[in-house]
Amino acid sequence: MFDLIAFDADDTLWHNETLFQATARDFAALLSSHHPAEWIQERLFATELKNLGHFGYGIKGFTLSMIETSVELTEGRVTGAEIQTILGWGHAMLQAPIALLDGVRETIAALAREHRLMLLTKGDLFDQESKLARSGLGEHFGAVEIVSEKNPRTYATIMTRHRLTPERFLMVGNSLRSDVLPVLDAGGAAVHIPYATTWAHEQVPADAMAGRTFATLASIRELPAWLAARRRSR
Amino acid sequence: MFDLIAFDADDTLWHNETLFQATARDFAALLSSHHPAEWIQERLFATELKNLGHFGYGIKGFTLSMIETSVELTEGRVTGAEIQTILGWGHAMLQAPIALLDGVRETIAALAREHRLMLLTKGDLFDQESKLARSGLGEHFGAVEIVSEKNPRTYATIMTRHRLTPERFLMVGNSLRSDVLPVLDAGGAAVHIPYATTWAHEQVPADAMAGRTFATLASIRELPAWLAARRRSR
Repeated sequence: MFDLIAFDADDTLWHNETLFQATARDFAALLSSHHPAEWIQERLFATELKNLGHFGYGIKGFTLSMIETSVELTEGRVTGAEIQTILGWGHAMLQAPIALLDGVRETIAALAREHRLMLLTKGDLFDQESKLARSGLGEHFGAVEIVSEKNPRTYATIMTRHRLTPERFLMVGNSLRSDVLPVLDAGGAAVHIPYATTWAHEQVPADAMAGRTFATLASIRELPAWLAARRRSR
Repeated sequence: MFDLIAFDADDTLWHNETLFQATARDFAALLSSHHPAEWIQERLFATELKNLGHFGYGIKGFTLSMIETSVELTEGRVTGAEIQTILGWGHAMLQAPIALLDGVRETIAALAREHRLMLLTKGDLFDQESKLARSGLGEHFGAVEIVSEKNPRTYATIMTRHRLTPERFLMVGNSLRSDVLPVLDAGGAAVHIPYATTWAHEQVPADAMAGRTFATLASIRELPAWLAARRRSR
């Protein structure tokens, strides 16, 4: 029924947002003598958003945004040792072990035996390639597409490049903003598997999903049964 | 004769290394009260190389390496204002106007009328896409491939993806290490157009090119005549 199933990576196949949030909390603690933690995290998020148009997504940009925020919030009194601590967090995030979500390894392996699978993620090219390599899932994906932004045009371009009919393209991911809405706009189908937590930037207004048709599953483990049921219903 | 001509971007189509070198000189000047300029640039380059395996290529990683070097070389006494200056250089580099090399605009436009052209560059996905958009050259390239590293396997993968026969694939670029040697290893042809200056990391030992067949041109302006001569000689 689907010629290809594409999977988002961060927070769909492996944990990611939790790593950013834990680091943001450490960051707030580092500067806690200057400001309340909540205000620090708010300012960090504002700096991230401001820089998104210059940096794109990813850990290097996040680390630069932490450093920028630390200079601003301390009015320049941040110490070299504190800067080094922040740089160390960046390195640690880049090398953090890949923690697959529950059920991912066996489900992806099983699906790969019957379907063409694609990894389709946005973010930093180098970091995403490195994470895929370390995830041990690489062999299951016939195609890997790392893009700088996921919008309807990106999806249309990828469908064209891989000679896919939109109606026979399925995207699976945790983000309504990146993995569901633009896929539906491009004529494809989408399965939403929410992650425990959502980066504020990826949140969409409640009414944005009105009138949209897509499936929501609690876990990737439910995907094979959903595919089978859909096949039977046709 | 060639089904597709692929062009490197940085220092082949537009100036790039000069921007990094100018910033490295500014960086040495910023810390000149601590160390001699030459030593500072040496340490910065060492930090860049050490971080390449974690950061990949690009301006964000370079900026993080400058910050790391500044903390080390000042033994933590770098000031918030100095960190802010370095961050400002990073932002300025990311937004620097694209300065095309002499002859690029007209030569690429002319070649695009007779050949399929591809942009094939390594580096930061987000930054390279932004530079291509700002360069005004986008319409001439039927395909764009941004990769994290240029080695024989990368080239082979791209040839397969675009259904290209190696002998009918031509790569044009300024780096012997990235644009010539791995292409020849993958069975393709290469034209080397040296840039005024070469990043130390891209340099190859003199004997690495022994026995290799590829053309060297002084300017991209010479490429159409070289292609015409090659066509006649067959």
